[in-house]
Amino acid sequence: MSDISVRLPDGKTLELPENATVLDGAARIGQGLARAALAGRVEGRLVDLRAPLADGVRLEIVTARDPEGGEVIRHSAEHVMADAVKRLFPDCQIDVGRTDHADKFQYDFKVERPFTPEDIEKIEAEMKRIIQEDAPFERRVLSRDEARALFAGMGEDLKVSRLDDIPDGEDITAFTHGGFTDLCRGPHVQRAGQIGAFKLTETAGAYWRGDESNPMLQRIYGTAFADKKELKAHLARLEEAKRRDHRRLGQELGLFFLTPKVGGGLAMWLPKGAVLRRELAAFLDEQLMKRGYQPVLTPHIGRVDLYKTSGHFPFYADSQYPPMQVPDDEHEQYLLKPMNCPHHIQIYAHEPRSYRDLPMRLAEFGTCYRYEKSGELTGLTRVRSLTVDDAHIFCTPEQVEDEFRTVLELVQFVLATFGFDDVRTTLSVRDPADEDKFAGDTEVWDRAEATLARVLESLDMEYEREEGEAAFYGPKVDFKVRDVIGREWQLGTAQLDYVLPERFGLEYVGPDNEPHRPVMIHRAPFGSFERFIGILIEHFAGDFPLWLAPVQVVVLPITSRHADYAGKVREKLRAAGIRAELDDRNEKLNFKIREAELQKTPIMLVVGDQEEANGTVTPRRRKGAPGSTDAIALDAFTSEVAEEISQRRS
Amino acid sequence: MSDISVRLPDGKTLELPENATVLDGAARIGQGLARAALAGRVEGRLVDLRAPLADGVRLEIVTARDPEGGEVIRHSAEHVMADAVKRLFPDCQIDVGRTDHADKFQYDFKVERPFTPEDIEKIEAEMKRIIQEDAPFERRVLSRDEARALFAGMGEDLKVSRLDDIPDGEDITAFTHGGFTDLCRGPHVQRAGQIGAFKLTETAGAYWRGDESNPMLQRIYGTAFADKKELKAHLARLEEAKRRDHRRLGQELGLFFLTPKVGGGLAMWLPKGAVLRRELAAFLDEQLMKRGYQPVLTPHIGRVDLYKTSGHFPFYADSQYPPMQVPDDEHEQYLLKPMNCPHHIQIYAHEPRSYRDLPMRLAEFGTCYRYEKSGELTGLTRVRSLTVDDAHIFCTPEQVEDEFRTVLELVQFVLATFGFDDVRTTLSVRDPADEDKFAGDTEVWDRAEATLARVLESLDMEYEREEGEAAFYGPKVDFKVRDVIGREWQLGTAQLDYVLPERFGLEYVGPDNEPHRPVMIHRAPFGSFERFIGILIEHFAGDFPLWLAPVQVVVLPITSRHADYAGKVREKLRAAGIRAELDDRNEKLNFKIREAELQKTPIMLVVGDQEEANGTVTPRRRKGAPGSTDAIALDAFTSEVAEEISQRRS
Repeated sequence: MSDISVRLPDGKTLELPENATVLDGAARIGQGLARAALAGRVEGRLVDLRAPLADGVRLEIVTARDPEGGEVIRHSAEHVMADAVKRLFPDCQIDVGRTDHADKFQYDFKVERPFTPEDIEKIEAEMKRIIQEDAPFERRVLSRDEARALFAGMGEDLKVSRLDDIPDGEDITAFTHGGFTDLCRGPHVQRAGQIGAFKLTETAGAYWRGDESNPMLQRIYGTAFADKKELKAHLARLEEAKRRDHRRLGQELGLFFLTPKVGGGLAMWLPKGAVLRRELAAFLDEQLMKRGYQPVLTPHIGRVDLYKTSGHFPFYADSQYPPMQVPDDEHEQYLLKPMNCPHHIQIYAHEPRSYRDLPMRLAEFGTCYRYEKSGELTGLTRVRSLTVDDAHIFCTPEQVEDEFRTVLELVQFVLATFGFDDVRTTLSVRDPADEDKFAGDTEVWDRAEATLARVLESLDMEYEREEGEAAFYGPKVDFKVRDVIGREWQLGTAQLDYVLPERFGLEYVGPDNEPHRPVMIHRAPFGSFERFIGILIEHFAGDFPLWLAPVQVVVLPITSRHADYAGKVREKLRAAGIRAELDDRNEKLNFKIREAELQKTPIMLVVGDQEEANGTVTPRRRKGAPGSTDAIALDAFTSEVAEEISQRRS
Repeated sequence: MSDISVRLPDGKTLELPENATVLDGAARIGQGLARAALAGRVEGRLVDLRAPLADGVRLEIVTARDPEGGEVIRHSAEHVMADAVKRLFPDCQIDVGRTDHADKFQYDFKVERPFTPEDIEKIEAEMKRIIQEDAPFERRVLSRDEARALFAGMGEDLKVSRLDDIPDGEDITAFTHGGFTDLCRGPHVQRAGQIGAFKLTETAGAYWRGDESNPMLQRIYGTAFADKKELKAHLARLEEAKRRDHRRLGQELGLFFLTPKVGGGLAMWLPKGAVLRRELAAFLDEQLMKRGYQPVLTPHIGRVDLYKTSGHFPFYADSQYPPMQVPDDEHEQYLLKPMNCPHHIQIYAHEPRSYRDLPMRLAEFGTCYRYEKSGELTGLTRVRSLTVDDAHIFCTPEQVEDEFRTVLELVQFVLATFGFDDVRTTLSVRDPADEDKFAGDTEVWDRAEATLARVLESLDMEYEREEGEAAFYGPKVDFKVRDVIGREWQLGTAQLDYVLPERFGLEYVGPDNEPHRPVMIHRAPFGSFERFIGILIEHFAGDFPLWLAPVQVVVLPITSRHADYAGKVREKLRAAGIRAELDDRNEKLNFKIREAELQKTPIMLVVGDQEEANGTVTPRRRKGAPGSTDAIALDAFTSEVAEEISQRRS
């Protein structure tokens, strides 16, 4: 019998008998580790503890300390929940479950009626019992016929139908704990007792296989962790995320709405939201003009041929609205533009260009349209109409480094303005093993990737290299910010492109009087206004900094007697460019204050006899108090606030 | 034999024998008038002099003093030209001619080769001879067979084919002068000698019947007037129009371009044109915000059902891009929005509204898409992508009058800002005889029309009433401006609408706590940015007022020694928000001045030793000289110019 050897993270080698499992490996390292083990990582890939090891592989043991350990726990909790439901509702059929990266698990059941809150309590109690029983999870490999016989015998018709989704040649595996067996790839915990703490969070109806013509199943969502402390922290984060949900706040603050009458993913901006967008646009525009960008404006459609040349059609046709075939000419088809680059390229190509014209930085807040699947649409963060804060820089190869550096500096400046301090930067490069996915020469790619790495290093920016994540036309740098409750969001991007200039045959005349090919940089610090605002709403929990607040000041007369003076205060503020409103409704002062609080208006100005007599106002700030709350002369207040707004402090 | 009687413009009645013609009527009034007569106007409709009169009609005699007299002269000159071509090229075939309202006539010929400039000279000489021969124009009514035999006998196959275009039951008439006969409805002059002056202006190839699969014919354009003075004035106007042509200036000044690669009628705005658009938008936006409008932003597409409800689909489908059928759902079709109203209506309808919320004025510079026929596209004045300076006012019936008044005042203010002094205002009302074309109650229409008339009168605005020209949903007021060379352009519009609020079921809660229907006002002072800018370019001949000029100041160092100081001057100006450029190319000063003149830059700043030593600049204005051309301290110049810009003087 020949032994195998595996490599450990500390560089040591472990000799094991043939057919040894991951758990055997863990046991050989130490009994404590074996007891804590939840899964293995073999050559970087998560595998079940019961999987056999091959000779020569790298092995790590995953415990509750690893983020992936939590996923294993939740996956097993998913089975425990299905087990509990079957124990309580023996006539129900199980469909499938899922454990995603957002600390959530779910399972769909065919039952006679939706689950009630009382059902959920009972299911939770049953799950506790199962965890206490602490049955081991066992893994079996089955033939297709065995699997079919097994689940058909249990009356699980939905499960039998899911068997057909497994391609021929793939192992069919099942996991059993106690009396419950499910079709599953794993990995799973060793024993149910390793599930330290769990909670069922939500129920929902869900069509079988997501198809409206199928019967509706009942879905239960839950979460689980290694211990109660982690669960509690998670539930608090969920609560906070709900409080910050931009869809709810967008409605409550009157910023935007979505309606099937207009179409899914097509945001309608109410006046306050439009003001917010205009402020963001003005801020960015000011930065662009300072940095030598030039504005352009292009239509929202273009002939399909543009996108055939660029390579965006028909390869991305799935995520585009279908082309419009006009009646006049069978060769004339128009596409809602999925991106702005081909239009900006036409502007570059409109005139012969010289090296003296470069770099040329063409900027447009250009609205693009992408047909995202309706199931994937989410408020403003996943939409079908998106206004990209777009620009394309056309430059000589020699200018790439300087241009890319100023682009990265701009993105950093923009993110810092909004108080995004925790930024993760990634450099996405091609996967050399997957050449089909990436257009252009190996040599050009190598140079481009090296240039971006050099620029990042010259700016002392830490970054992670992500292989295979580049755009098809070149490598890119992405910015991912972490918000105050720890969620990561992909924001700005900057991409280098040697391919589109080639495909569109772009040129400039060099100092040598010969034609040369320019390089393009695609960049968008926000990404899109829609997504950026969605994230900003959550980041600030709707409590925008003064300069961004749709209403900056609300004037509250104590009684109707003070309405005239309050009106004058508002006019004075408005004349100074401050967005001021007057609440002169016939309501109690406290009611108005409460409403202004709910609307998250940054400054309330209460005015009564004293203020009117002295020409003052008494400001009341929502957050902290950069200013005082004593009465202050109206003139002084106005110029203080105008100054604060102009500084765009966040 | 019974006589007939006709009524004359002075109210008198004229007794004439049965079968008397228009010319007979003229002769009865006076021999001088009969000699000068070119056509008649019977019941307001232009008719040939040789047409018989019916009993009881109103009759006017048209002479060269009437604008329509010129049309008759040009129409006859068209025949004289065809006659001349046939005399010089006996083998050619004639197709058809046309005389339009733009003082132009044209005729298409099937000839072996295009006409040369020498041919045109010969044709003009031959036309002179024909006019001198002074043959009378004679009118005949022919049966279809007679007409076919006549033109077939002359070998005019194209003409024979045109016979089939005349519907059965319609009179077939021909006009003959000298040896030339053409199929024609008239009217025509009495004798060729009445064509006082003419000029052939252009030649072009034109596919037979406008179809690319047909052979190409040769078209000649010309113009004709009663005398040489009128012709000369017309040719000077043409020359001036060419100098002001916004398509040529748009290219020369780098403002915009159109390209079939993107699609017909889809303007691409170059940086300088985008700056111009932004200035116009900022100007209008400032006015709107002052007047209590609220910004909104809506997508460029919407579900087709929106337009079915509004009534814009399928009735206007001919002028729309075709709907996009998405793959997910057969009932889900999207339309590029042909107008913004249905989207703004959704915003109104998004929340329950109270009378206290009204008037609600929702404004958006919203880009719409209309599929105008490719033959009708013209630069920026007839496009397929148009950004409407749109707003919709939702108000109570009691507020309509005040709201409409402030809308009209706004349009007047806007037009005056650009120096459009010659404005013609029309009130378009329904045609009570054509009820199908206009939606809604008679009573509501009467009240709406009366309201608009009252508002116009209260503003002391003169207006013309145009019956049948209303929108389908309500009466409207249009503004037509006359530019410096006398051409009229349709610009802003303001429309009252009782129909769409009904169709979309809009409501507000009144002071009585009951639901009521609001009224809508549609209004756009520019009409669209595209069209307005096209007209502005022609109005100013590209020589924009300082505040609108894409580049306001260009700094010209006398030698490269002064480039540093010139650079500082530019930065100083830019810091003050002035759009300043520096021309530091290694070229002669005169060359740079000439180029700045061609680019129509309002102010050139020449800087040399003296300016550098004294910290001054020496401005040189393109137009007149509101400022001096002496050297002036840079600070003083900067604040003077900044002040001038902020005043938006035109």
